[in-house]
Amino acid sequence: MASLLRAATWGMFPWRGYCSRGTQGKLSEGFVEALKAVVGSPHVSIAAAVREQHGHDESMHRCQPPDAVVWPQNVEQVSRLAALCYGQGVPIIPFGSGTGLEGGVCAVQGGVCVNLTHMDRILELNPEDFSVVVEPGVTRKALNTHLRDSGLWFPVDPGADASLCGMVATGASGTNAVRYGTMRDNVLNLEVVLPGGRLLHSAGPGRHFRKSAAGYNLTGLFVGSEGTLGLITAATLRLHPAPEATVAATCAFPSVQAAVDSTVHILQAAVPVARIEFLDDVMMDACNRHSKLNCCVAPTLFLEFHGSEQALAEQVQRTEEIIRHNGGSHFSWAKEAEERSRLWAARHNAWYAALALRPGCKGYSTDVCVPISRLPEILVQTKEDLQASGLTGTIVGHVGDGNFHCILVVDPEDHEELLRVKDFAEQLVRRALALHGTCTGEHGIGLGKRQLLQEEVGTVGIETMRQLKATLDPRGLMNPGKVL
Amino acid sequence: MASLLRAATWGMFPWRGYCSRGTQGKLSEGFVEALKAVVGSPHVSIAAAVREQHGHDESMHRCQPPDAVVWPQNVEQVSRLAALCYGQGVPIIPFGSGTGLEGGVCAVQGGVCVNLTHMDRILELNPEDFSVVVEPGVTRKALNTHLRDSGLWFPVDPGADASLCGMVATGASGTNAVRYGTMRDNVLNLEVVLPGGRLLHSAGPGRHFRKSAAGYNLTGLFVGSEGTLGLITAATLRLHPAPEATVAATCAFPSVQAAVDSTVHILQAAVPVARIEFLDDVMMDACNRHSKLNCCVAPTLFLEFHGSEQALAEQVQRTEEIIRHNGGSHFSWAKEAEERSRLWAARHNAWYAALALRPGCKGYSTDVCVPISRLPEILVQTKEDLQASGLTGTIVGHVGDGNFHCILVVDPEDHEELLRVKDFAEQLVRRALALHGTCTGEHGIGLGKRQLLQEEVGTVGIETMRQLKATLDPRGLMNPGKVL
Repeated sequence: MASLLRAATWGMFPWRGYCSRGTQGKLSEGFVEALKAVVGSPHVSIAAAVREQHGHDESMHRCQPPDAVVWPQNVEQVSRLAALCYGQGVPIIPFGSGTGLEGGVCAVQGGVCVNLTHMDRILELNPEDFSVVVEPGVTRKALNTHLRDSGLWFPVDPGADASLCGMVATGASGTNAVRYGTMRDNVLNLEVVLPGGRLLHSAGPGRHFRKSAAGYNLTGLFVGSEGTLGLITAATLRLHPAPEATVAATCAFPSVQAAVDSTVHILQAAVPVARIEFLDDVMMDACNRHSKLNCCVAPTLFLEFHGSEQALAEQVQRTEEIIRHNGGSHFSWAKEAEERSRLWAARHNAWYAALALRPGCKGYSTDVCVPISRLPEILVQTKEDLQASGLTGTIVGHVGDGNFHCILVVDPEDHEELLRVKDFAEQLVRRALALHGTCTGEHGIGLGKRQLLQEEVGTVGIETMRQLKATLDPRGLMNPGKVL
Repeated sequence: MASLLRAATWGMFPWRGYCSRGTQGKLSEGFVEALKAVVGSPHVSIAAAVREQHGHDESMHRCQPPDAVVWPQNVEQVSRLAALCYGQGVPIIPFGSGTGLEGGVCAVQGGVCVNLTHMDRILELNPEDFSVVVEPGVTRKALNTHLRDSGLWFPVDPGADASLCGMVATGASGTNAVRYGTMRDNVLNLEVVLPGGRLLHSAGPGRHFRKSAAGYNLTGLFVGSEGTLGLITAATLRLHPAPEATVAATCAFPSVQAAVDSTVHILQAAVPVARIEFLDDVMMDACNRHSKLNCCVAPTLFLEFHGSEQALAEQVQRTEEIIRHNGGSHFSWAKEAEERSRLWAARHNAWYAALALRPGCKGYSTDVCVPISRLPEILVQTKEDLQASGLTGTIVGHVGDGNFHCILVVDPEDHEELLRVKDFAEQLVRRALALHGTCTGEHGIGLGKRQLLQEEVGTVGIETMRQLKATLDPRGLMNPGKVL
């Protein structure tokens, strides 16, 4: 009642969206009723627990809950929600699986969180065209389960079972990117609800060709836009033939340099390696303990190859030659599915293995990416910085792309330690920028890297991005406070 | 003198750019002097022959000469030219090799043509990072010559020896795209002079990482923008390991369907075919005559494989199995460089072979791209339409991408025939659009396909593109009349 009264004094509409515009902004009862009129009462919540749950992702950014959470059932509802919120000056925050790592879902100005997970249909599969259309709630594992008997798969794998449209919004990549590319390379078309509610098909309605030179690349503009330009309500993705056979391997190296040199030589030899992951000695030690591996505690590469039996044999032979030439040893080849799963489960659980180094603590992951030739020096320097900082941290990375993560394990109650983490992470990014790298290979800018983005792209770059944002979202209501 | 007088009455500047604003616009002497002050007298021309030469590309669009042509020597000059022209309301038209096929360089509103071919240095080669930075005048052949001993190459090959930045602007692709992707997939960073003269580095100055999730994808926005958003003054390109060995082949098929089915099966089998090109019977007949081949006059695939000797043997074996299963015959394998060159020279000369069908006539090329599953029906329909139209035309295409060209050979003096060509081409595009395809796989929109672009991307799509254009080029002076 009080909020209704405040609403009445605030604006000209009886259910004007906001009662107050501070960070404590509440929605008027009338506005909540209007939300319910769009998606149905059971699909709107203003319960504190629900809002809390939607106010954070898997990162350490503090929870900033939205004022309401809504679960639209179809694109028409998303469109009406966008029009309603935009018309009333209420921020809109898209929500997928909540597995982001840069605070992309924090409702820094309050507003309505649009949880898209109820829209989880696979709308269209075109096996001959190697394409599929998914709604935003479909996760990458759900898609690959659906594709199991089709001879096709979707290879982008950021680790978490993220929603595919969330992966589009983040510009995600992961372990298979060295061979299959990132989300940027695997999106053919997007259906986007623009801030005012209008529906855009980035490559035209229903289109799913493999290439085009028709006008500006709108698809590319929305991939990696982190929900700041519109709500992605469907994605047409590029599929790949499922590998006929797969071999995985681990191999230890005398130094970081030797591991990275091997990577460059493998790429130069055009071995179509599917995955090539680096883990430093601390990370290996943690993985040995956590996943009961029995690997050397040394700089290590995890590799995976896809192809026919014959092609695999050659890839494996060439790789072994290159690795031995660079001083690698302790090969462990895994051909059977079970053995491979065990290896890659250990790699995918690296995050938890790192956390287990300090029970009760939380993790923070850096995400720089540099030209591969600069990897050895930045890795060596980062290890030195880690030791000097006294922080607990491991290094793991998609070394074939020049992208690596430093997983820092922190006591969230220790303010001084948190500051050291912040300093360490910023120093690492500035080092990467000085080596012509980027502050984020795959996690996005989100809340914490906005200043660093500015340093990375320069004044004209950031102004151009701001102009694009202002053009597509003139009221600045789409996931405000992110990216820019 | 007359023009100076008119200039004085036209505007407030003594050398106001335009004396009149119609399509007959002339530049004032003062403005031409200002151009000379930027680039030096020898690098400015207002000679009719020079202007004519810069008023058209290789297409049939009529010559529309600019009012002046300038040859800047460096990026600072390009920046000053842009500021000068923009300040004076004078259109700016970037010019590379002039090998475009959609009238992209026609000066529809007059203005200054900026010929970038004097800026032809390879600025930086990073072999370990698989990247190179080129100025806009460097052509793809010049780059590959430079790379000869590096073990690397740049695979995007549109046929013509186009300038690489022109290829960026067009979003070009060509015969190798099925394996190596198009320009969209192979540009890491762009240096762009924005319309007002400011310098943008689309991924930040000097950066050349393999992937990033940092902010909006500005690089992607400029690839394929056809000179309408800015002047590309340097491109950082992604390089690939040079193939260890290469095999080429041709193979005849009983039907179009059999040739396309083979293509889909080869892709589904994950054979990493480097080139897979379709030529119809009429095209083969023309190539046999023009290039003295001795191939069957039947639907034909030209193929090329890259890899190690061992990998090639397997690719070839699998491909033969698939092709035989689909009724293909008359294999001709070419392993030696000379033999391969002869085959691919014939393919690259397809345009001239088609022209030779009617000596004295000109060629017009369509460029639709459809989902591969729809290729057989559109190819069969297109052949029927061709016969019904009475036009002379051949079909050749990058069938692995779903992209094909119908090369129509026309008497440029025969107005009625030109109209039939226009009708045929439009009907073909509308057919492609109905099959979820695009009006242009690789030639761009240019002058002739603006209406078709609108049909392809829909109202919201075209309005979004218009908004982006208005944001980056508010005065509408960058290559006006193209794309939108």
